[in-house]
Amino acid sequence: MEIKVFKEIMDENLKLAEDNKKLFKDRKITAINVMASPGAGKTSTIMKLITMLSEKANFGVIEGDIASTIDAEKFEKIGIPVVQINTGGGCHLDANMIKGVMDDFDVKDDSIIFIENVGNLVCPSSFDLGENVKLVIASVPEGHDKPYKYTSMFEAADFVVLNKVDLAPFIDFDRDAFYKGIKALNPDAKVFEVSCKTGEGFTALVDYILEVHNQSKK
Amino acid sequence: MEIKVFKEIMDENLKLAEDNKKLFKDRKITAINVMASPGAGKTSTIMKLITMLSEKANFGVIEGDIASTIDAEKFEKIGIPVVQINTGGGCHLDANMIKGVMDDFDVKDDSIIFIENVGNLVCPSSFDLGENVKLVIASVPEGHDKPYKYTSMFEAADFVVLNKVDLAPFIDFDRDAFYKGIKALNPDAKVFEVSCKTGEGFTALVDYILEVHNQSKK
Repeated sequence: MEIKVFKEIMDENLKLAEDNKKLFKDRKITAINVMASPGAGKTSTIMKLITMLSEKANFGVIEGDIASTIDAEKFEKIGIPVVQINTGGGCHLDANMIKGVMDDFDVKDDSIIFIENVGNLVCPSSFDLGENVKLVIASVPEGHDKPYKYTSMFEAADFVVLNKVDLAPFIDFDRDAFYKGIKALNPDAKVFEVSCKTGEGFTALVDYILEVHNQSKK
Repeated sequence: MEIKVFKEIMDENLKLAEDNKKLFKDRKITAINVMASPGAGKTSTIMKLITMLSEKANFGVIEGDIASTIDAEKFEKIGIPVVQINTGGGCHLDANMIKGVMDDFDVKDDSIIFIENVGNLVCPSSFDLGENVKLVIASVPEGHDKPYKYTSMFEAADFVVLNKVDLAPFIDFDRDAFYKGIKALNPDAKVFEVSCKTGEGFTALVDYILEVHNQSKK
């Protein structure tokens, strides 16, 4: 009984994700589903990318949170089209929520939209949103064992960002173990090491985001 | 329909949590439900507490993870009774899982059991396990805004540990904002600032854990 209900929800989600995918394609929008633990640096990474790419692309941000508009306000302040989804307790975004906000979202065609999912390394990986790519952000202080514990998240990732590398000297983070875990689950996923604080590593990430946008418009 | 199914699950969970609560009381066990983001330091905090209290109390650990036995092995290595629950994708422990492992769990009466929940600041807060107290661990690198974004978790906490304070000099962490957020949601929750790495702050936390154990046996 429970399983049946769950399957219905997943089927319905996939159908709506297909609708979103079509909408994004028609409008030459690249949607990036950004997933991470609470506090890994989703908002900071998106903010840094938008700032660095502001003259090369248009942007929009869809903010997913249980509660609050703290992060959405940051993007509004710098003039980026942003819409907030408060899940009211829900642990992930779903395709229907994205569909619901796209109608009134004043984002330009040919934009890159960052969809900042609820901070959670579990549930968001199961729900396609119709995004072009899934980005998982890990951070050095969380520890190198995350790929081993949150396997479906790292399997789902199209690419991975390892943030807060500036803190590496103060933390016992085993880089080899981290990479080994990702390679075992997801051999093709690129990994970018960055620090939102110092800015290191962002040049390569910025180039990659532009490449993804150009590829997805083809 | 969905709501009805969800309500049935929650009612059933509460009933099983009551069974667990009775079992813990009969056996003079204090169960501490430890919840946090991935990588906040749940295992390290539990390990530190058990090491410091090893001559003053008996312990057991129930490890909840999506996958892997990485953390359970750490406790087994130092001779602590430990049992692993792999949720196989599930984002939280529930009362039935705890009930299921207690029968064969070789933990002594009059023990403190740490139940390490799945790393997640959302779902675990909704599921009582029959625990005596709920501990939420936050960490400095996650940022001071977590109480504002994951409100139900910080509302549910009986006490809060702020871990990784040794990293504070390298991070923009606004202590006042963090405490203000917790006070607004949960005025009575005690907060303990600690570092698993340097050991600072643990003396007060150890005393508090012993006090909780003594109170719960009354």
